[in-house]
Amino acid sequence: MRRKISDAVVRRLPLYMRVLDEYKKTEDNPLISSQELGERAGVSSSLVRKDLAWFGEFGKQGVGYDVEFLRNRLKAILNLDKEVPVALVGVGSLGLALTRYVHRRYQDETHFNLHIVALFDNDPNKIGAHVDGIVIDSLDRIPEKVRKYDLKMGLITVPAASAQMVADALVAAGIKAILNFAPANITVPEGVHLTSTDFSLEMQRLAYYTS
Amino acid sequence: MRRKISDAVVRRLPLYMRVLDEYKKTEDNPLISSQELGERAGVSSSLVRKDLAWFGEFGKQGVGYDVEFLRNRLKAILNLDKEVPVALVGVGSLGLALTRYVHRRYQDETHFNLHIVALFDNDPNKIGAHVDGIVIDSLDRIPEKVRKYDLKMGLITVPAASAQMVADALVAAGIKAILNFAPANITVPEGVHLTSTDFSLEMQRLAYYTS
Repeated sequence: MRRKISDAVVRRLPLYMRVLDEYKKTEDNPLISSQELGERAGVSSSLVRKDLAWFGEFGKQGVGYDVEFLRNRLKAILNLDKEVPVALVGVGSLGLALTRYVHRRYQDETHFNLHIVALFDNDPNKIGAHVDGIVIDSLDRIPEKVRKYDLKMGLITVPAASAQMVADALVAAGIKAILNFAPANITVPEGVHLTSTDFSLEMQRLAYYTS
Repeated sequence: MRRKISDAVVRRLPLYMRVLDEYKKTEDNPLISSQELGERAGVSSSLVRKDLAWFGEFGKQGVGYDVEFLRNRLKAILNLDKEVPVALVGVGSLGLALTRYVHRRYQDETHFNLHIVALFDNDPNKIGAHVDGIVIDSLDRIPEKVRKYDLKMGLITVPAASAQMVADALVAAGIKAILNFAPANITVPEGVHLTSTDFSLEMQRLAYYTS
């Protein structure tokens, strides 16, 4: 059943989770209405109700959602109720910054369960060095480390020309979810989930609105 | 007329531009068909033709688009035919990495006209320091620097709690396009274009696909 849920729905779940986290911090009310949740997430209340209905009956008509309960359910649905071990390939300036950013959030926030535990680079001068206590390995050790740490997610921060090769290596080793930061159109086989985030494209698009 | 073009169209233009750049590097053919362009950009050929029709008649029926001409037109449409001066606020590890990344591309690529020329932070220990030759200023100097450099675009890499305040300051100073990296829902008045890119949300969403 799970696989039938559209990516458009899955895409909004972390947003709801963030809204609930903020709500919990600032409001005393243990309940939240679909109106309030929608407003804070920037979507309509009917979309909130439709999205959450995919995962069972959370809300009570006219009462609202139990914030704590809904938050925990969303967390479990997203597999974020336990640690998710993550690999990062390409420890350049962007890879380094991302490693530190994710690691700091992992340490500071009790419920931020994304944990970078393996780093890879092909530069002999970097291999063997550590970032936040994590050793940088050569790319040929990807299969071994994926098995050892049961890695499920990979971040790609290599130059565009190497991105497809790295994606292929991650997929061959069993990685199921890839977040690509390289400015390249890469492809993955069915069953693997790929998202590309490309701020140079975003900046170029925004340039349109500067005149 | 320009403002009637939907953001969905504008969003694909940098992608077409990238495809044309790659095509120019690897192919000898001075022409490209809408089929080829669409395939490489991951959209249908009819969408390519529809998108480009917004900007005039580029293609010749049965012949294709002139690669060089189309590339230059797209660049001009996106305001990337001349330098776009950019501000970045929040010189933490992410802000630092982005500054270096954008600056390197600006130096290495003849046609990458996005140029970070002003940096801001509220940390007294950072103010006055330089990154790639650019001085870090305090936030109260935003209006002055926006005027001086005719800044049109701002990147926000501050913690979530400060993101709205920084966006307000950029907008008040006259910035028309903002790329927000902070994990926060911020709002801007009409006439200002905001895009948020949030890799922690992307990672959380991808976690869904790890089981």
